[in-house]
Amino acid sequence: MTASDLFGAIEQVRSRAPLVHCLTNLVVTNFTANVLLAVGAAPAMVVAIEEVADFTPLADALSVNLGTLDAPQAEAIRAAVAAAQTAGKPWVLDPVAVGPLPFRTALARELLAARPSVVRGNASEIISLAGGIGGSRGVDSTAPSSDALDAARRLAQATGCVVAVTGAIDYVTDGTRTASLANGTPLMTRVTGVGCALSATVAACVGAGAEPWHAALAALAYSSVAGQLAAHSLAAPLPGSFAVAYLDQLATLDAAAFAATLRYREL
Amino acid sequence: MTASDLFGAIEQVRSRAPLVHCLTNLVVTNFTANVLLAVGAAPAMVVAIEEVADFTPLADALSVNLGTLDAPQAEAIRAAVAAAQTAGKPWVLDPVAVGPLPFRTALARELLAARPSVVRGNASEIISLAGGIGGSRGVDSTAPSSDALDAARRLAQATGCVVAVTGAIDYVTDGTRTASLANGTPLMTRVTGVGCALSATVAACVGAGAEPWHAALAALAYSSVAGQLAAHSLAAPLPGSFAVAYLDQLATLDAAAFAATLRYREL
Amino acid sequence: MTASDLFGAIEQVRSRAPLVHCLTNLVVTNFTANVLLAVGAAPAMVVAIEEVADFTPLADALSVNLGTLDAPQAEAIRAAVAAAQTAGKPWVLDPVAVGPLPFRTALARELLAARPSVVRGNASEIISLAGGIGGSRGVDSTAPSSDALDAARRLAQATGCVVAVTGAIDYVTDGTRTASLANGTPLMTRVTGVGCALSATVAACVGAGAEPWHAALAALAYSSVAGQLAAHSLAAPLPGSFAVAYLDQLATLDAAAFAATLRYREL
Repeated sequence: MTASDLFGAIEQVRSRAPLVHCLTNLVVTNFTANVLLAVGAAPAMVVAIEEVADFTPLADALSVNLGTLDAPQAEAIRAAVAAAQTAGKPWVLDPVAVGPLPFRTALARELLAARPSVVRGNASEIISLAGGIGGSRGVDSTAPSSDALDAARRLAQATGCVVAVTGAIDYVTDGTRTASLANGTPLMTRVTGVGCALSATVAACVGAGAEPWHAALAALAYSSVAGQLAAHSLAAPLPGSFAVAYLDQLATLDAAAFAATLRYREL
Repeated sequence: MTASDLFGAIEQVRSRAPLVHCLTNLVVTNFTANVLLAVGAAPAMVVAIEEVADFTPLADALSVNLGTLDAPQAEAIRAAVAAAQTAGKPWVLDPVAVGPLPFRTALARELLAARPSVVRGNASEIISLAGGIGGSRGVDSTAPSSDALDAARRLAQATGCVVAVTGAIDYVTDGTRTASLANGTPLMTRVTGVGCALSATVAACVGAGAEPWHAALAALAYSSVAGQLAAHSLAAPLPGSFAVAYLDQLATLDAAAFAATLRYREL
Repeated sequence: MTASDLFGAIEQVRSRAPLVHCLTNLVVTNFTANVLLAVGAAPAMVVAIEEVADFTPLADALSVNLGTLDAPQAEAIRAAVAAAQTAGKPWVLDPVAVGPLPFRTALARELLAARPSVVRGNASEIISLAGGIGGSRGVDSTAPSSDALDAARRLAQATGCVVAVTGAIDYVTDGTRTASLANGTPLMTRVTGVGCALSATVAACVGAGAEPWHAALAALAYSSVAGQLAAHSLAAPLPGSFAVAYLDQLATLDAAAFAATLRYREL
């Protein structure tokens, strides 16, 4: 993948404005919608069991996030994922806080059978998910993303999904290929929902037509380069200003600045 | 209506600080509350079936938005609308995404019988709602607002509501009179919830005492002029900065700038 | 308490990054999470009855806010508070709009038996809560905070909680000692969720190890000084810009500026 390949997936989002059906957590709905709009996609957050099976097939992709899962949402997620499968629509799984909480962990494992295009999580989430397939468990969420690289490969091989582990360095693997991204800023951890919105951006990229490997790399690369440039644009690196600058940067970042900043490596 | 008439309804909001009970969608709760506060109203988002019938009569107006409708919210909306009718409180309906989704479409049609003061939607929503009364259906949401003008008039005549269709040009009709507003900025479509919050602002205006026709025009005019001036205040037209500038402009826009910018026409 | 004592509790939050489990209202989830991150704490908003009893013991403190209470949330709150008691974790109660609404008022009174470390509310909320123990009721929420001082003392004496009444002047009492804080800005009432997030910040302070009296004073002092300095940093005192500046100030305020601005008095 070249910088031009990666940026191309974002240009497709901008030109096609894919409709992304988000079943996400209560904390990040607004920010996720604004990130999708900034990137050029169209967010929609239909939530009811009475509606999701009708709505998901109208969307270009589905983004599922377990951050504030409850029983009615679990039912809606199952229906939406089934509808996505039937309609041949790609979907993305963000297994927030999977590991210590059995209710969401069981749902996340169940959903893997419906083969998301991409799973994106932090190190402990990916290790926990892979653990169900035979690896380790219970690692602290402060683990560096490199600790989850083996787990990510195993998870990708076992499920056929592309797996992205985000952290100071981001890793993406399909079980055979692996690549790393070394952009971003610590400020991305000081604003709630940056990671959750990133998963929705992956969904926007697959919804606009990119293959899962391409989509995951493009969304992660674009978002972390935008975050890095947004941080650099500030007189002081503070989180309120950063959230505004990040949305602005997502809406305006061009191919030249993207390529000049990108730190991408195939491992 | 003169610019002074329209601005007068906003001044009433500022001086009376009407309490607006919002039953709205999960994506826009925070932004809607901040818009109402910026305009000078007091937001309140009591949601439970155990509380809404007690609370709506304490408010000055009710704002109902179907964006993330589910069954418990449908029940709460029915109870709140019934309480508003009994207590003689005005209410506003925002029929988000009505048309392709039967569950919310049926509720929206049912609620029309309880005669909202104002219905505000985009072209496809208004055409879909009017369709139940005899017009066309299924129009794409990218339709220009002018395509919905006949539907809006039919809907207003059949229900006795004032109907507002928003888009690049906004139209307001009571079935007899029609007026257009040609202010705003494309950035208002790049921040989630601007339209939803606009419906709540209409509720604030009726809650402060304006007649529905006056309230709908005043809220749309004030919001779109504020959006236009907020966009003009920015060095670059980007959505993160715009959301901040829009709230600022809503809180500070004065009668002179409003009158100088307003593009209002009776058709 | 000296300015140094108060700032010390914030420094503990910054160094220990307490995990704060928030069961809060739908309007302020995002802002509350961003405030906690800005102050240096780690927010988590697990909501389901299937998960809260597992999760609360993993957190350092629990923050309960009744703003958009419904029956499933009431059940989750009861389970989380019981788990906090069993695990010996401190918790904070924000009794939003208690008084006119029997459903939440009954829950708030029930929860007092589980002895929160701190109760934080506005004048009418505190008067209503204390009223159940023998005082007056139904006072308008526009009452100045000083009107609630006797009620706050009675409530603290009857329950063993520290009680904070916030308004233009903030008061904190444990039933014996009382202190006032005279910082802040009217802009803090023009952004939704500032008070709700403040309660979560109190939880962060107790979660980082401060005693309830110390935690309540520190969180109120730090937040109102940060708000005041954020307002002063703006070219124009407008709410959109203020929300951004407030988060920035919460993330950067240092001991010297805090001490120079603080207006604290023991009564």
